[in-house]
Amino acid sequence: MTLPVSDATPPSATLTITCADQPGIVAAVSQFLRNHGANIIHSDQHSTDPSGGTFFMRMEFYLPGLDHTRDAFTRAFTQVVAEPLSMDWQLNLSSQPKKMVVLVSRYDHCFLDLLWRKRRGELNVEIPLILSNHEDLRRDAEMFGIPFHVIPVSKDNKPEAEAEQLRLMREAGADFAVLARYMQVLSGDFLREFGRPVINIHHSFLPAFVGANPYRAAFNRGVKLIGATSHYVTEELDAGPIIAQDVLHVTHRETPETLMRLGRDVERQVLARAVKAHAEDRVLVHGNKTVVF
Amino acid sequence: MTLPVSDATPPSATLTITCADQPGIVAAVSQFLRNHGANIIHSDQHSTDPSGGTFFMRMEFYLPGLDHTRDAFTRAFTQVVAEPLSMDWQLNLSSQPKKMVVLVSRYDHCFLDLLWRKRRGELNVEIPLILSNHEDLRRDAEMFGIPFHVIPVSKDNKPEAEAEQLRLMREAGADFAVLARYMQVLSGDFLREFGRPVINIHHSFLPAFVGANPYRAAFNRGVKLIGATSHYVTEELDAGPIIAQDVLHVTHRETPETLMRLGRDVERQVLARAVKAHAEDRVLVHGNKTVVF
Amino acid sequence: MTLPVSDATPPSATLTITCADQPGIVAAVSQFLRNHGANIIHSDQHSTDPSGGTFFMRMEFYLPGLDHTRDAFTRAFTQVVAEPLSMDWQLNLSSQPKKMVVLVSRYDHCFLDLLWRKRRGELNVEIPLILSNHEDLRRDAEMFGIPFHVIPVSKDNKPEAEAEQLRLMREAGADFAVLARYMQVLSGDFLREFGRPVINIHHSFLPAFVGANPYRAAFNRGVKLIGATSHYVTEELDAGPIIAQDVLHVTHRETPETLMRLGRDVERQVLARAVKAHAEDRVLVHGNKTVVF
Amino acid sequence: MTLPVSDATPPSATLTITCADQPGIVAAVSQFLRNHGANIIHSDQHSTDPSGGTFFMRMEFYLPGLDHTRDAFTRAFTQVVAEPLSMDWQLNLSSQPKKMVVLVSRYDHCFLDLLWRKRRGELNVEIPLILSNHEDLRRDAEMFGIPFHVIPVSKDNKPEAEAEQLRLMREAGADFAVLARYMQVLSGDFLREFGRPVINIHHSFLPAFVGANPYRAAFNRGVKLIGATSHYVTEELDAGPIIAQDVLHVTHRETPETLMRLGRDVERQVLARAVKAHAEDRVLVHGNKTVVF
Repeated sequence: MTLPVSDATPPSATLTITCADQPGIVAAVSQFLRNHGANIIHSDQHSTDPSGGTFFMRMEFYLPGLDHTRDAFTRAFTQVVAEPLSMDWQLNLSSQPKKMVVLVSRYDHCFLDLLWRKRRGELNVEIPLILSNHEDLRRDAEMFGIPFHVIPVSKDNKPEAEAEQLRLMREAGADFAVLARYMQVLSGDFLREFGRPVINIHHSFLPAFVGANPYRAAFNRGVKLIGATSHYVTEELDAGPIIAQDVLHVTHRETPETLMRLGRDVERQVLARAVKAHAEDRVLVHGNKTVVF
Repeated sequence: MTLPVSDATPPSATLTITCADQPGIVAAVSQFLRNHGANIIHSDQHSTDPSGGTFFMRMEFYLPGLDHTRDAFTRAFTQVVAEPLSMDWQLNLSSQPKKMVVLVSRYDHCFLDLLWRKRRGELNVEIPLILSNHEDLRRDAEMFGIPFHVIPVSKDNKPEAEAEQLRLMREAGADFAVLARYMQVLSGDFLREFGRPVINIHHSFLPAFVGANPYRAAFNRGVKLIGATSHYVTEELDAGPIIAQDVLHVTHRETPETLMRLGRDVERQVLARAVKAHAEDRVLVHGNKTVVF
Repeated sequence: MTLPVSDATPPSATLTITCADQPGIVAAVSQFLRNHGANIIHSDQHSTDPSGGTFFMRMEFYLPGLDHTRDAFTRAFTQVVAEPLSMDWQLNLSSQPKKMVVLVSRYDHCFLDLLWRKRRGELNVEIPLILSNHEDLRRDAEMFGIPFHVIPVSKDNKPEAEAEQLRLMREAGADFAVLARYMQVLSGDFLREFGRPVINIHHSFLPAFVGANPYRAAFNRGVKLIGATSHYVTEELDAGPIIAQDVLHVTHRETPETLMRLGRDVERQVLARAVKAHAEDRVLVHGNKTVVF
Repeated sequence: MTLPVSDATPPSATLTITCADQPGIVAAVSQFLRNHGANIIHSDQHSTDPSGGTFFMRMEFYLPGLDHTRDAFTRAFTQVVAEPLSMDWQLNLSSQPKKMVVLVSRYDHCFLDLLWRKRRGELNVEIPLILSNHEDLRRDAEMFGIPFHVIPVSKDNKPEAEAEQLRLMREAGADFAVLARYMQVLSGDFLREFGRPVINIHHSFLPAFVGANPYRAAFNRGVKLIGATSHYVTEELDAGPIIAQDVLHVTHRETPETLMRLGRDVERQVLARAVKAHAEDRVLVHGNKTVVF
């Protein structure tokens, strides 16, 4: 289906910067961009502490022809701004969307939500590959014309399965991965080997109800709200930097099953919000926390 | 796809009652149910005014074998309870889900959300037919295995188009209809002829921004929240009884286009909530308002 | 100040019931009320499981003269309904508001909010006494004309201090107590001796961030929402039955100090909601959970 | 009362700028600030359209000694940055809080909430004067040590009453005024004469339910949410630029009176949020809309 109205962002570039806070950062970057003829559209900055803290910045700008002059721009920025100020930085072009691999098991809600949003133009990503440990969602994936690859995972074959996943993800050129209710824990080895961001959706308002069966745990504790948390995956389970969270109110009338049903709506919203923010270079990681511009 | 966990409601019956408030209603109904061996699971009641007001009740109960004894139950209830207390009432069995016809144009978000929830078992309805005035969503409908019928509508052919819609909806045995962002106004004649509930989703927090282009109007007014409203359709545009509403916060950064994108998430949630409530006989209409149990 | 508009509930009575679920409960209670000339205004019920579960009910009704006929009503209900069905039950009259003792330390927000709501008629309670371990809020308490009693508490004098608190609370005829950010842990002995409900407000969305300094802990974990939880106090810290919870969204811009400031608005709302529900007999405790009608 | 924890903002300066969007604005301002030794803490910008639109910026920075060098700073900024770029701009120092006059009638909830937040250090304002058309809230005002002046207003004396209000507000050096549920409409003459921002709280989610009795109107329409809107006052009633809005969910159970009670909590939150944003120079007005940084 083609939507009559497009809300795709027009082609732009995004510069994300992390460095020690010090006077003159904004001046240096904005002066550089001005000198190169860029028009800044959005600018966000954050400092953990103006004296001795860490400084984060995201600048989105138009610069006609940057697709072709990217190398020169990069060399100049490195020399004039980034090296003198000891910056970690990235330049991304909206005309070159990130490649996102989706890992999924049998629950379809987060998975379909991402595919729909991609199709509608809400998410500026490419999805070259879907990996699953079950056959269930093959037909849905194919409906969207995306390769769907099943690698069963068990205690016995986990290292081999992960190696195969890794091979396919690299082949697909994955820039990041999304666990859309993927029901297997990724090993530390896998995460290190992949070396790129992996976004997960956990079905509770972390740090409450870490681990398996959070809706059952929420029911047992008698909480009056349930939630979902999207975070970057680290080796420690459910403890990585949080990108987005939300909750909804529930009453004594709910059972673990109806909590699970209600939770689906929060899960898919929260995951979509996190993926969109990541795709648009709005998330800067700092230790175990995130700055989300 | 078959889900490992089902959250379908177990077979039950629902009695909805509207009558003049008066002492003894609850006693009469609960006594009757008890005498017939029913086990009440949920009971809700509301009175607009204990003296001289209107009384609303919804009782959900288990009664084994009611599928077969429905006629006798109905006769007895009429004689023993409903007539003496001058009740308007309905009995519905969850084993006989309502038939819902969906009307849609080109926007897919509300439409896909309903089909997907139906597939997940969240909505206890049958969808015998989808009607559209455009071809765009045919493939999606077919993916869900539901007949998709296109009837183009223009100023010139509106009466004929509505007559054909009506014929197909009756043939399909429609118990109610849902306008899932259907971009044509239904005529008063159509509504009277159909004679059954029609649920619409309007893309603003009514009564603000009645009519066309509410996101543009919201942008122009500079509101700090946008919303959606699901309501029963009446002849007066956007003025029927409201079933569900919700909003989300927005800032000066949004354009009419991004408001439209953000609004999609509220629209589909609000419409799904309204349809679910209607399908479960939770909505009782009273003049231009609703009681939603 | 006298408000031009009162929203005080008109005099009514509330019956709360807990018993094993079994057929005929609603019929028995509503029949009894009808026979005694009561007019039911609201009725809520809940069952943990229709077969073998626990049944909860709250019925609010008008019954003229019940102030004078309460003893006879109680005897009759016991004999006709409560004993045959083995019910735990309570009858409360809105004309006899509960006596609420407030314990407070130095934070004023929850404390003032309760006093304001009481003054405005939002909370149908009497406040015969405020207890504090600090002098700070004396002037505020006196502004509202409520006795303010300071009992300093330290490691050394805790048993004596609690004994004195207990003596004053009993003298004041306390029906329940509210810890409006009272910064001392009540001992198990105190709770047992007092033998009545104690409502606390904890400044996190429990079970996350149990214990001291939850805003600091929330900051350290980098959560994207903060919250508050009101619960009944049990001997195990922050683990009692939850009555109400809420959260608000926060970003990376907040510090532990601004989280604390933002959290004040959630804390006072959540505590007020819990206190109002308790005062109106809407909360039934079941093990470590609550039913809130 | 002295709070153990202060969340007062440390002394800083805020520069707010509105001008035609054009390349080099951020560079010019940040370069100027750097050259003067300022350390930027927060920076926000917005453009209605990068080509031909309006540009808005708020920069918050530390600059030791600016209290004493303000005139020189102002002259230099005018010459080097503001005039070349045709900027409307303002410089405000947090060490010189704005003077806020509160107008109030008989409802106490918004009024008390503002006074209490001021006392807590949440609002960096001075309140030199409270004006009312009723005596009711005198004692509360005096409890907070703020002069309370009653000027009764009727159809007959409105011009004289407004003249007297204006005189007192000028005498008090008012930088802006807040209508904390002040139940009189201010005349266009008054607004022009005063010539400074006036913030109102309207008890509905505007543009729905403009005018008097919005809770009654909300009840009649059967909406499922109620809300509040804080906006700058213009001559057209309830049509000025919106600063903040919020809503809460309601059901069929509410009456106009309980809607009014529930609404109080939204009203005071929304008004406080708007006043805080205004006091911190976060609100830039653009036609009939606001940019809120």
